[in-house]
Amino acid sequence: MDTRRDFLQNALTLTGALAAGTPGHPLLADEASGADLSEPGSDAGRHLHIGALIYPRMDQIDFTGPFEVLSRVPGSTFHVTWKEKRPVRDHKGLLLTPEEALDAIPPLDVLVIPGGPGQEDLMDDEVVLSFVRAQAARARCVFSVCTGALICGAAGLLKGARATTHWGAFDLLGYYGAIPVERRVVVDGKLVTAAGVTAGIDGALRVAAMLRGDRAAEEIQLGIEYAPEPPFRSGTPSSAPPEVLEAVRARISDLTLRRLSTAKRFAKKLGVEVEDGGIRPKVGKEKP
Amino acid sequence: MDTRRDFLQNALTLTGALAAGTPGHPLLADEASGADLSEPGSDAGRHLHIGALIYPRMDQIDFTGPFEVLSRVPGSTFHVTWKEKRPVRDHKGLLLTPEEALDAIPPLDVLVIPGGPGQEDLMDDEVVLSFVRAQAARARCVFSVCTGALICGAAGLLKGARATTHWGAFDLLGYYGAIPVERRVVVDGKLVTAAGVTAGIDGALRVAAMLRGDRAAEEIQLGIEYAPEPPFRSGTPSSAPPEVLEAVRARISDLTLRRLSTAKRFAKKLGVEVEDGGIRPKVGKEKP
Repeated sequence: MDTRRDFLQNALTLTGALAAGTPGHPLLADEASGADLSEPGSDAGRHLHIGALIYPRMDQIDFTGPFEVLSRVPGSTFHVTWKEKRPVRDHKGLLLTPEEALDAIPPLDVLVIPGGPGQEDLMDDEVVLSFVRAQAARARCVFSVCTGALICGAAGLLKGARATTHWGAFDLLGYYGAIPVERRVVVDGKLVTAAGVTAGIDGALRVAAMLRGDRAAEEIQLGIEYAPEPPFRSGTPSSAPPEVLEAVRARISDLTLRRLSTAKRFAKKLGVEVEDGGIRPKVGKEKP
Repeated sequence: MDTRRDFLQNALTLTGALAAGTPGHPLLADEASGADLSEPGSDAGRHLHIGALIYPRMDQIDFTGPFEVLSRVPGSTFHVTWKEKRPVRDHKGLLLTPEEALDAIPPLDVLVIPGGPGQEDLMDDEVVLSFVRAQAARARCVFSVCTGALICGAAGLLKGARATTHWGAFDLLGYYGAIPVERRVVVDGKLVTAAGVTAGIDGALRVAAMLRGDRAAEEIQLGIEYAPEPPFRSGTPSSAPPEVLEAVRARISDLTLRRLSTAKRFAKKLGVEVEDGGIRPKVGKEKP
């Protein structure tokens, strides 16, 4: 037992000595406004229900990234849901298993909507869109990752909202009435949108902080040792070498065209004005 | 059709204009030596088999992070394996489904070994350890994430090797005969070890580059928009506020003690000399 105590003491000294009191970056002021979802008062500590929609041909880490963070939010239950409880395969074949059908989960405090190629198949799926709308109306936070934002758009949740999505679909946001914002995570009231794929981890840490405070989010971050060091600088179109960008853009061009066609259809449906030529929709009014 | 072409052209111009020709960071010279796993010559383009061991109470993103990257390696098949083909639950309850039993998967080019609390249960599991040893003997790369490194240690793969693991288990590496290296990803010949949890994404991009070249890895990185922006600076013990570190350390202390006990047992078994007091094992000889 002494040795064990010594080990802990040793580890404490070794690591504690390095622990400078560096405070976390505070949420940016412009985004923090209206973004505190914690409820002061008697039910501030009440149990939270966090749920993620999963579906065929989604991109799995759009969901498993946020799951990693949000399943660790103190005092919460994480729900994984789809139309039926049978496993679905992600875009690259990973099996993901929903445990509750859409109509069986309780009102959610946070609804996570991942993206991926399969998102296109949900854009006219009224069962899914009704679920999203009904949950969104009551939720404290709707959190989309990647092209999950387009599902929010199809559900009418983006009109007038600042939002982001995967770089390959960014120009489509305006067709849904959104105000596109080129940031990794955009918070507009209870709508949180993360950029492509892995941005869901950054977004989820923001959501965790909004729900239970910065300290809780920081503890989660340390537990999952989230101090990323990408070995290359190719994570965005502006930092990647041009040949890399062209190769990836070519690979997704068919999907991009399908998404553009869908977006134009929704612009009409949602009454969003689109400028001549159909390239760039007018954006909604900037919020004060 | 014109409109579609215009859109693509527009997107090309908009994004292409921003695409500075910033080259990716080259692998650090000291680590790049011996780390190029591509096979020059006739079979450089041969199909690769990449497999991940999954198991109960693992940490899911130790696996789903690398899956996101490595399932996108050109010319490869990803295998998800466990003793039996029934789903397992990760530490936080996510269902993960293995599709091939351990004895049914082919010789792997890359074996991914994730970590998490359930790792302790595998340390004396000869079925698992034999699988790891047999695959490791033939593989071009053994890639551990988080405390998956301790499973490698139990299989005898860490003796004399430079390695890393989750910060909470870092001091245990020496008991397995490893040379602990405080970096996010450590490459020693065909052994690649990543630090805690989310470090598996960084490590997987390194592995992808080793298998198919930097360009392939950079295309994957851009596709998954991996340009992380953690909202806080609490990702490591040295950058997190002391109170955050203490809270997380307290939460994992029972597990840390169990892991220490296991590590001491393995030091004896593996013939690793440990200094008096049992706190810090002697490390193996530094490689030239």
